[in-house]
Amino acid sequence: MAGHGLDPEDWGETRAEAHRMLEAALDQIQQAAKRPWQPVPEDLDARYAVAAAARGPQAVVDQIITDVLPNHGGNIHPRFWGWVQGTGLASDVIAAMAAAAVNANLGGRDHGANRMERAVIDWTRAKMGLPEGASGVLTSGTSQATVIAFQAARLRVLPDLRRSGQGAVRLTAYAGEGVHNATMKGMELLGIGSDNLRKVPLVQGQMDCTALAEMVTADRSAGALPFLVVGTAGSVDLGLFDDLNALADAAAALGLWLHVDGAFGAWTRIADEPYRSLSDGIGRADSIALDFHKWMYVGYDCGMALLRNEDEHRAAFAARPSYLEGAERGLAGGEPWFCDYGIDLSRGNRALKVWTALETYGEAAFCEAITGNCALAAAMAAAVEAQPLMALGAPVVSNICVFTARSDLAPETQSQVNAEIAQTLQESGEAVFSTTRGDGRVLLRAAITNHRSRAEDIQAAIEAVAREAMR
Amino acid sequence: MAGHGLDPEDWGETRAEAHRMLEAALDQIQQAAKRPWQPVPEDLDARYAVAAAARGPQAVVDQIITDVLPNHGGNIHPRFWGWVQGTGLASDVIAAMAAAAVNANLGGRDHGANRMERAVIDWTRAKMGLPEGASGVLTSGTSQATVIAFQAARLRVLPDLRRSGQGAVRLTAYAGEGVHNATMKGMELLGIGSDNLRKVPLVQGQMDCTALAEMVTADRSAGALPFLVVGTAGSVDLGLFDDLNALADAAAALGLWLHVDGAFGAWTRIADEPYRSLSDGIGRADSIALDFHKWMYVGYDCGMALLRNEDEHRAAFAARPSYLEGAERGLAGGEPWFCDYGIDLSRGNRALKVWTALETYGEAAFCEAITGNCALAAAMAAAVEAQPLMALGAPVVSNICVFTARSDLAPETQSQVNAEIAQTLQESGEAVFSTTRGDGRVLLRAAITNHRSRAEDIQAAIEAVAREAMR
Repeated sequence: MAGHGLDPEDWGETRAEAHRMLEAALDQIQQAAKRPWQPVPEDLDARYAVAAAARGPQAVVDQIITDVLPNHGGNIHPRFWGWVQGTGLASDVIAAMAAAAVNANLGGRDHGANRMERAVIDWTRAKMGLPEGASGVLTSGTSQATVIAFQAARLRVLPDLRRSGQGAVRLTAYAGEGVHNATMKGMELLGIGSDNLRKVPLVQGQMDCTALAEMVTADRSAGALPFLVVGTAGSVDLGLFDDLNALADAAAALGLWLHVDGAFGAWTRIADEPYRSLSDGIGRADSIALDFHKWMYVGYDCGMALLRNEDEHRAAFAARPSYLEGAERGLAGGEPWFCDYGIDLSRGNRALKVWTALETYGEAAFCEAITGNCALAAAMAAAVEAQPLMALGAPVVSNICVFTARSDLAPETQSQVNAEIAQTLQESGEAVFSTTRGDGRVLLRAAITNHRSRAEDIQAAIEAVAREAMR
Repeated sequence: MAGHGLDPEDWGETRAEAHRMLEAALDQIQQAAKRPWQPVPEDLDARYAVAAAARGPQAVVDQIITDVLPNHGGNIHPRFWGWVQGTGLASDVIAAMAAAAVNANLGGRDHGANRMERAVIDWTRAKMGLPEGASGVLTSGTSQATVIAFQAARLRVLPDLRRSGQGAVRLTAYAGEGVHNATMKGMELLGIGSDNLRKVPLVQGQMDCTALAEMVTADRSAGALPFLVVGTAGSVDLGLFDDLNALADAAAALGLWLHVDGAFGAWTRIADEPYRSLSDGIGRADSIALDFHKWMYVGYDCGMALLRNEDEHRAAFAARPSYLEGAERGLAGGEPWFCDYGIDLSRGNRALKVWTALETYGEAAFCEAITGNCALAAAMAAAVEAQPLMALGAPVVSNICVFTARSDLAPETQSQVNAEIAQTLQESGEAVFSTTRGDGRVLLRAAITNHRSRAEDIQAAIEAVAREAMR
């Protein structure tokens, strides 16, 4: 292939540079604790501007090492608990090399990557307690999985929707206060409208099924068509869990599709008690959306939609024009094709990194890490309560701890102090909290989906908050 | 970090295994021509079943080498022209290692990966001829980008849609016969309905703008709200291009949003003439959907939505609840956040592989490869016409060649012969054609988005077809 512009002319050089890149990549992970987030250099945009000229692998690897690796998002650091971010695995690097070389398109056809995706789906299905024969597809994340599930739910009540559109029917959906914004965005995208998502009040942190039934009845009386209830397994703000068994009963009684947003919380299914019980009943859902890139720690992006009924899943998405016709033999075999299970026709390989992680470290290591993260959130709560001026914003239920650094101040001043502390500790590299609001105040928030965090990290971070709170 | 289950206990072992994986991955690419697709072994599903136990990096790398790499989809082989698949780059392996180590979430916040995505968007925007200040977001592919663009188009005519839903308004959209199924699926997903997509007849392979105007007028008279016309830059079956300047004029006159499906064909923008002119006018679109994983050859998955008007882009998707509030300093800075430009809140790093490819090989190498692919399609057409019993199904316009191996047979028999040839050559490893339908026959179809193909590959493949056609 001499002289060809898009394969290396000098494979020896490319191999050498790739090995150099690999060492730097593994250094980045091994030294995660020494490399907290840092502010982005002012001239980074200029450094990243695409050059017209070929620079070759050596110059590019040089620049990745100097300009890309240091300007990371901080989320693989052991004291990163901002938002709900995953922390990555060394096995991701191994999987990424193989995936890049194979360059599989998992939209369809008969090859190994699709088989591996089915293996990952089947493992997940079993962990979630869905029956054999349930359906699934890997997605970029819970947001996409939510859209897929909602569309299938809508098809159940409007079977002609793909051709005719929703029309004048007013569909209504229901979710507890605190539901993730992905549900609102799904309602918007599908053209149902976020006004038609009813927020059901919580009782002791869980959706009030009596209120749910009343709202459904009222909507039916008003001419709407209630079709969907969204249960939350791990609320984004507080890590709360709906009573999924009660919701499954209610959904059955009310004739609603039960979808569970389990973005991170679904993985309590493989945790030890008392955390495992939080997601009891999840296997009764009609659909589940969850992420691997949060609490299963694999690299971005990777989520999954699971649907109880494969026919309903396919009814929402299957479509194969003549240029995609299958065949009995050859590459065009391999039914089913994943393009019939979601939005994407071309699909990257997300399965290999999940499989590589599970095979390398074993399921028990994930169980231990997830359980450990919940224990650390409880430890953080205890550390907060041991500080005289701090106070929890809410009890810790799973892996999220929300608190104020100065409960003695007026709400507005607390907000300023907490927001300032979050920024200062991010910039100092000591710890990453994000913020949220509760009881009219900005609060500090730690969502612990980090397999590198240890008890001493929690202690040091709370001490740093206490120090900053007194400045 | 001794004793921790999800970081290596023995980094030396992990490094050694990772380097072994890297060599095998690069071998896979360097030896692409020697490794055509092969049928999947019968026991592969069993081999892929997730084991509960930790197996460590050595056993897992062993299995990736024996069970994953050989069971690829064939698409990096120089004689693969099935469907419209990209062929991958060695630079993808380098980018993948860095991306896996950084593990960035490009949904938001202030870090380098988001800056790089903006650099890639800006480069693409300029190549497509959209004005500075136009907006964009990387996606899993054109299907997602289409959904994003359609939702923004819908918001223009129904600004309250996110809250209230589409309601009883009947929206109608227009596209030429031969439009890709992603447009139908987008109409379905958004709840507009595929019946409300009007297929406009083609004249000499391009949408008939007179017919378009008549259909829009008729729909308006019937009470519908026409909102969108979809131009095609590179039709999936035949590689045809609408006259995008004429469409832009028509869209302006008719008050429609002009979206261009440029999944692969948009990249004629960087080809030499006569191919570049095919996409003239694309920069006048309100939105463009395109892929990098097809004709820019980078690994799956990677597409982009480009929108002329950033306000309209944000109006369709921006939403930031309290747990996602930005800040002036620290990690929560870095506006704008990409979660406000699409469906996904968590987003993987697609920019780095595009940037690494462009920086390593240079833009000119891509221009040359794209132009060369069109020339090979023309060469294939000539080779087909030189065979006495073969015939083209349509003239070759860009990079797609559709033909029958036995024009002398009855249509039904031609279909059987062509389908059989596709399967046989896939299984023999000689060449991968896919099939489509035209004039009531199954036809062989080559979509050349393959930077490894050479003139001798075309010649050998057509000779193999001729041989099989006489069996």
